[in-house]
Amino acid sequence: MLALGIDPGTAICGYGLVEQSGSRLRAVTYGAVQTRSDLEAADRLLKVYEGIELLIKNYHPDIVGVEQLFFNKNVRTAMAVGQAKGVVLLAAVQNGVSVAEFTPLQVKQSVVGYGNAAKEQVIYMTQRLLNLSQKPHPDDVADALAVAICTLHINGANRIATKIKEVFS
Amino acid sequence: MLALGIDPGTAICGYGLVEQSGSRLRAVTYGAVQTRSDLEAADRLLKVYEGIELLIKNYHPDIVGVEQLFFNKNVRTAMAVGQAKGVVLLAAVQNGVSVAEFTPLQVKQSVVGYGNAAKEQVIYMTQRLLNLSQKPHPDDVADALAVAICTLHINGANRIATKIKEVFS
Repeated sequence: MLALGIDPGTAICGYGLVEQSGSRLRAVTYGAVQTRSDLEAADRLLKVYEGIELLIKNYHPDIVGVEQLFFNKNVRTAMAVGQAKGVVLLAAVQNGVSVAEFTPLQVKQSVVGYGNAAKEQVIYMTQRLLNLSQKPHPDDVADALAVAICTLHINGANRIATKIKEVFS
Repeated sequence: MLALGIDPGTAICGYGLVEQSGSRLRAVTYGAVQTRSDLEAADRLLKVYEGIELLIKNYHPDIVGVEQLFFNKNVRTAMAVGQAKGVVLLAAVQNGVSVAEFTPLQVKQSVVGYGNAAKEQVIYMTQRLLNLSQKPHPDDVADALAVAICTLHINGANRIATKIKEVFS
């Protein structure tokens, strides 16, 4: 199963494509769509949209995971992140890929094992789980990879739960 | 000149297409893209995107105007409005239409004449300026028409200012 995790943003939109086979996780590709600050907002959104759509068309992920960010952000930031998230969700649905949203708590629990983990712990565990020789940089890329891992864990668990339910129903 | 004003939202996205010839304003069409609450967020965004793109492709507006909303909104609302605004801006830029953003103050000043105007005054003056027999409904539609009027006013004024500058430079 292949999950594309996204940390949406207009200036930097982090992405991480992680494959799971059995219990093994592998980072297929990761990076960030970065847009120039002298571009208009709409043009920056177009760059983000095109970058993410290119990833979807090239790698055909089974699912796109995005973090639900409602906390620690002011209204202006939330609006900007929302705009980027909007075009990311659009790129997914237009290409027939399902979308899942996760809370920061779910991401931390999936990657570190508990919801109160610090940002640095999440980055460290992401690097360990994916066996990366270097720390993913910038943080937006590490966040996107963490979301991809969470997407695979929770989606996998849900599929097992559905299977068990089918067996016993 | 033809302006498409948008009041972005995921449940209701108001739109108003207003034409200016000389000092005359005419509402070409107006309404709202409404999406069912049982749809996933990404599918609702797709409906909004498709609805706005259809308007752009059918009517070829010269400019799309959107209100900059940072106030009186909480972070959760800002995120949802931001997502809708993101796909609206994308639809515009993908179809080669320029985008302008206006503050609520600019919209009120354009339509009513002063920035402290109440919502009801904006709706009343929008109806009067466009010579509509009925009050536009819901408010999102009236808001979108008001933004379209503001877009025409400010854009028209900017073009005159540019012309004057050209003559004297």
